[in-house]
Amino acid sequence: MIEYYDISGCYIVRPWAMSIWEIMQTFFDAEIKQMKIKNCYFPLFVSSGVLQKEKDHIEGFAPEVAWVTKSGESELEMPIAIRPTSETIMHPYFSKWIRGHRDLPLRLNQWCNIVRWEFSNPTPFIRSREILWQEGHTAFATKEEADTEVLEILELYRRIYEEFLAVPVIKGKKSEHEKFAGGLYTTTVEAFVPNTGRGVQGATSHCLGQNFAKMFEINFENEKGEKTIGVMVMVHGDDKGLVLPPKVASVQVIVIPVPYKGADMQGIFDACAATVKSLNEVGIRAEADLRENYSPGWKYSHWEMKGVPLRIEIGPKDFANNQVRAVRRDNAVKIDIPMADMVEKVKDMLDNIQQSLFDGAKQKRDACIQVVHTWEEFVEALGQKKMILAPWCDDEEVEKDVKARTKGDIGAAKSLCSPFNQPELPEGTLCFASGKPAKTWTYWGRSY
Amino acid sequence: MIEYYDISGCYIVRPWAMSIWEIMQTFFDAEIKQMKIKNCYFPLFVSSGVLQKEKDHIEGFAPEVAWVTKSGESELEMPIAIRPTSETIMHPYFSKWIRGHRDLPLRLNQWCNIVRWEFSNPTPFIRSREILWQEGHTAFATKEEADTEVLEILELYRRIYEEFLAVPVIKGKKSEHEKFAGGLYTTTVEAFVPNTGRGVQGATSHCLGQNFAKMFEINFENEKGEKTIGVMVMVHGDDKGLVLPPKVASVQVIVIPVPYKGADMQGIFDACAATVKSLNEVGIRAEADLRENYSPGWKYSHWEMKGVPLRIEIGPKDFANNQVRAVRRDNAVKIDIPMADMVEKVKDMLDNIQQSLFDGAKQKRDACIQVVHTWEEFVEALGQKKMILAPWCDDEEVEKDVKARTKGDIGAAKSLCSPFNQPELPEGTLCFASGKPAKTWTYWGRSY
Repeated sequence: MIEYYDISGCYIVRPWAMSIWEIMQTFFDAEIKQMKIKNCYFPLFVSSGVLQKEKDHIEGFAPEVAWVTKSGESELEMPIAIRPTSETIMHPYFSKWIRGHRDLPLRLNQWCNIVRWEFSNPTPFIRSREILWQEGHTAFATKEEADTEVLEILELYRRIYEEFLAVPVIKGKKSEHEKFAGGLYTTTVEAFVPNTGRGVQGATSHCLGQNFAKMFEINFENEKGEKTIGVMVMVHGDDKGLVLPPKVASVQVIVIPVPYKGADMQGIFDACAATVKSLNEVGIRAEADLRENYSPGWKYSHWEMKGVPLRIEIGPKDFANNQVRAVRRDNAVKIDIPMADMVEKVKDMLDNIQQSLFDGAKQKRDACIQVVHTWEEFVEALGQKKMILAPWCDDEEVEKDVKARTKGDIGAAKSLCSPFNQPELPEGTLCFASGKPAKTWTYWGRSY
Repeated sequence: MIEYYDISGCYIVRPWAMSIWEIMQTFFDAEIKQMKIKNCYFPLFVSSGVLQKEKDHIEGFAPEVAWVTKSGESELEMPIAIRPTSETIMHPYFSKWIRGHRDLPLRLNQWCNIVRWEFSNPTPFIRSREILWQEGHTAFATKEEADTEVLEILELYRRIYEEFLAVPVIKGKKSEHEKFAGGLYTTTVEAFVPNTGRGVQGATSHCLGQNFAKMFEINFENEKGEKTIGVMVMVHGDDKGLVLPPKVASVQVIVIPVPYKGADMQGIFDACAATVKSLNEVGIRAEADLRENYSPGWKYSHWEMKGVPLRIEIGPKDFANNQVRAVRRDNAVKIDIPMADMVEKVKDMLDNIQQSLFDGAKQKRDACIQVVHTWEEFVEALGQKKMILAPWCDDEEVEKDVKARTKGDIGAAKSLCSPFNQPELPEGTLCFASGKPAKTWTYWGRSY
């Protein structure tokens, strides 16, 4: 998927990972175009004057900004920053282009790279210094339109996680402490990695409110595009390697001939090619691995490691019986399929794999959710690496206090989101942390 | 199309230009995937050690390299360069990944931004400091395979220019002096801008030869992606603004209602919407401009300036006669079309506009081609801003000499390419510049 690079915190995205990114990109791009959001491209560079204009906003990024100070042998007159995000780059042009209500709504998006020179230990996919992502910036005449679009975009992000990556997420609202600085409110899809017991902020869609006179703005970004792939890897991977959901696998079906002494190898090879052709014709991404210098066993391990959802083997017995053997990557179940039903059966199996990866992940995630009511229960659940659902007073100071009290080597607990889908909150329920009256159920945990 | 930005040499690519880039990208990307070239993404950054490894290669870029020396407030231990191109970044990994012939061919491509901090005056689309482009890097076991792929890619570039942008190009080979430094040979598609009398190197496909033991490499890049759009603008634009070839226009047909006192405006608006719907259904990118606060005349100018290939007007008379009026952007021809034939006729007109833009551009370009045999004829033709075809001895020293002798305020003449399609070269023909025996016909001119 990735290759380490000689500059720390930078990684090479190899084709296997890139194709996953492209599949998500194709889906999201088509959907936002339907919503009349148009793509554009703003520069990589931002002058220090512009960058520092929005003080609140830039404070968080300042320590991580990479500065260009030289070109060739010459010092630049003024250092120039590489974008850590593009709000400060784009907003001045929004003001310029929007003269009045008839220029609204303005809906722009860009696919680009951003740079955040983090010093905490970089991790491929999860924390890298150069990030491929998408950032949308739109402006409306009314708050109602802005609110609607915030949720429409959030739904697209949910679909990317749940329908494509088979990773269950919880939709909700960020706390005041965790929201986009300077914005009105932030919505999020939150994933959870059971193995490590950590939450992941999947993607966020923000309502910025009226930053400029008479114009409601929203922003949305798939919080570090490559991170999305990292979450999928962590949620579905196993000892043998990756497990790719069929919808994002660039090879959904790998067809492998199984040679046998004295067998009709040409016949078997032809059957493999014909199988690939039939599958391709209905839009299934299938390939045959006909290389002669690798054994079937080597090929099995190779494609298992790469996470291909379904393997089809064709050996002399299959060939003689006019059937193929199909082996699922996710649960190792093997079945023999008559050639006549092959395409239909493979289609069903792929749908089934997609669904069962999601169901399995949801089951595991749900098993990690722990409802707590008291600080003691909270601390215990945190120790057990749970995703904690707790009644909360929604007070920013209390959240800061929770962070301070749980600070440790593996990071502090923080609020993940208040789910839109709220359980009942009986009158008189108290906040797990402050003992004050609770206002909302909120998820808490350690997070990437 | 673009907006100036507060950092000199950087531009904002607005949606109208971005969509042209995306259309070309979609075409090229699908075609190279058919050729089994896979997309990947290498880092934006390169360490100075790696950058300087290929001395010959980097010499040309060194003065234009942007250097990151600081992150936040800290000086980096070693300055890090922003890629001016990715050969030095990618080649070490090719060596690592290719262990033997069974790992070949390796075919990678990336869509990315590169930075060249040029100091000559920046020009939108033609010379900018950050460039969006595509760069392909592939490796083969044999030179024959490499040669074949060089030409297959060059043909794709020709199609982008001729079939999409309606800009005629000449396919050929670069001289030793102009080829990719360190490579075996460079092929190119060369465009020409009649108004300014300058050639444009459209895109290049290089055979690098055996850089590493037993492996033949090729590179290809659409020489500064955005430049491609700039050439199209210069070739087709007129006094009223852009003229977009239908194939790259994000809006191919703009439908405009023409209100008239007492007319059935609702009926006309509905007819506009119905027209757009019928066109969209057959895949034509049509939109209606139903804004009430702009006059039809304002809308005509607006969409003419934006270069939309075909305008459809629907006024009371058209509505009563169940017809529309279609007006071509390229030649202002107006025709009335009965609603019953509308979709078919519009399709034909768009094809016709595409073809006639190409034919017109080719005619103008051809009229600029001047065959010369002597230095005097050469100098005269250069003064007349011609694209010059001359018999040449193919000697690198002679080319340097031609450059030196034609150096002026507006740049020196250089060889553009030796066309694959060579005119007859009779025995005894002499080089226009050296008087030595000519070996090839070559195009010369000033170039962007």
